[in-house]
Amino acid sequence: MVVDLYDYKQGNLNKSKNNIKIGYQGVKGSFSEEAMIEFFGENQEAVSYEKFEDVFIGLANKQIDYGILPFENSCTGAITAVYDLLSKYGFYIVGEECIKIKQNLVGIKGTKIEDIEEVYSHPQGFEQSKVFLKEHDNFKLVYYYNTAISAKHVSNLKDRSKAAIASSRAAKIYGLEVIEKEINDNESNNTKFVIISKSLELSKDCNKMTVTFSLDNKAGTLYNLLGHFAKNQINMVKVESRPSKNNLWEYVLYVDLEGNIKDENVKDAINTIEKECKYFKLLGCYKKKEF
Amino acid sequence: MVVDLYDYKQGNLNKSKNNIKIGYQGVKGSFSEEAMIEFFGENQEAVSYEKFEDVFIGLANKQIDYGILPFENSCTGAITAVYDLLSKYGFYIVGEECIKIKQNLVGIKGTKIEDIEEVYSHPQGFEQSKVFLKEHDNFKLVYYYNTAISAKHVSNLKDRSKAAIASSRAAKIYGLEVIEKEINDNESNNTKFVIISKSLELSKDCNKMTVTFSLDNKAGTLYNLLGHFAKNQINMVKVESRPSKNNLWEYVLYVDLEGNIKDENVKDAINTIEKECKYFKLLGCYKKKEF
Repeated sequence: MVVDLYDYKQGNLNKSKNNIKIGYQGVKGSFSEEAMIEFFGENQEAVSYEKFEDVFIGLANKQIDYGILPFENSCTGAITAVYDLLSKYGFYIVGEECIKIKQNLVGIKGTKIEDIEEVYSHPQGFEQSKVFLKEHDNFKLVYYYNTAISAKHVSNLKDRSKAAIASSRAAKIYGLEVIEKEINDNESNNTKFVIISKSLELSKDCNKMTVTFSLDNKAGTLYNLLGHFAKNQINMVKVESRPSKNNLWEYVLYVDLEGNIKDENVKDAINTIEKECKYFKLLGCYKKKEF
Repeated sequence: MVVDLYDYKQGNLNKSKNNIKIGYQGVKGSFSEEAMIEFFGENQEAVSYEKFEDVFIGLANKQIDYGILPFENSCTGAITAVYDLLSKYGFYIVGEECIKIKQNLVGIKGTKIEDIEEVYSHPQGFEQSKVFLKEHDNFKLVYYYNTAISAKHVSNLKDRSKAAIASSRAAKIYGLEVIEKEINDNESNNTKFVIISKSLELSKDCNKMTVTFSLDNKAGTLYNLLGHFAKNQINMVKVESRPSKNNLWEYVLYVDLEGNIKDENVKDAINTIEKECKYFKLLGCYKKKEF
């Protein structure tokens, strides 16, 4: 029973604890590193990985205690690869952080916009700067690991025909100039990050939960299930659906809820739902980032 | 009232009608063109566009009668840009098609895998071939409009260090060789396409609907709303959530349902829901693609 897990490990996410190792994807200057510093402070040991999955592998191999990964952007939506990796590795969400994203066109010293032929960034960097890129449709867009690695790469290339879409912090770290400032489409562009762990961590001040489940494709199944949340006055903040890896056109749902697993109403709802689902997992109960 | 729209235009999607112009994104050999031929047959006038949004603009300007666009991949999930464009332009879904996707590494005659330095494809082409690309992490991945345009581009470059991820049909059309066959991760990789129109088109044999709505962030709102479908025995096939363009961390939901807008139970549910939502729209009532 999921609720038994409440007794399993309590309140261990102590950000001020020493000798914590935290893994993130990217290099110094990435939005992930920024989110990590915001959440854990400056004094932790940071381990950078090249790809999202490397963070999961690092956690599985005990190279790190926690991972921090982007989960959702307020303009472009869910970072679906991270959802799928969470399912694949069976890890938990133990916290969330949020960072305001400002994308910039950056290049080596003296680069003018008319010099640029090739632009490096993560697909989300391109996606978030669509309006700007439409005005410059002569740019060849090169798909790269993340925005900060793109900046580092452009810095190494030392070529004025190459630019990157990255943060101004990344530009500074890699000695690049900002050619065009804040090129992202939307002013309120924020990315939510999740802190992941190999085990659930619960404390009294957790006020948000993420659950995942799959269900039979029958009229009313989803409704009946969501009914247990509604009857218990639990608010659903978000619903995300991902393709099931098992059956064509079947889905796994990820639902964000308000509340704490130790609350009586939440316990009641989750215990009932667990029995009614093909598959159910409490992905995490953590403290909501307030704005 | 949405249901009144039933009388607006009936059963106009006549695939055998002459002089229909259909727009798709890509070039000859794209999966979109393949889906178009599968749905409309070989004898229609096809208009190709470079970008997703160009198809919407073409439809808005009456250059075409219908558009066909990828909507969801069975492995990588929703093509979220198309969801957002449907909202932006206010068009309707009038049909769906489904194509089995086989990705291949293709290049000019005589290209060997060890020659390749740069690979062109759409991000979905890369995303769908992750296992293969992990084994070849020396490839520089270039973000390109779509898989067939990537094949065409590689054909024009006439350079053995360049390759594309595309269909074998695209390889054939652009005189390329398949270097590595079926490199996609999942054997059952299918893409669902939607046929879009400026107006709703309804007929008796429609058995699937897509609705979109946004709601207040209150406990039970979503549950109450979905309750009208459940009470009326209407099955929800899929739920997709996208960021609202208006408010940070608010969502617009897209729900696929089984049924026809003219059914009494569907009419009842939709009329009630429409009153309870902040925003509600029937995006389409069309014939489900059977497998």
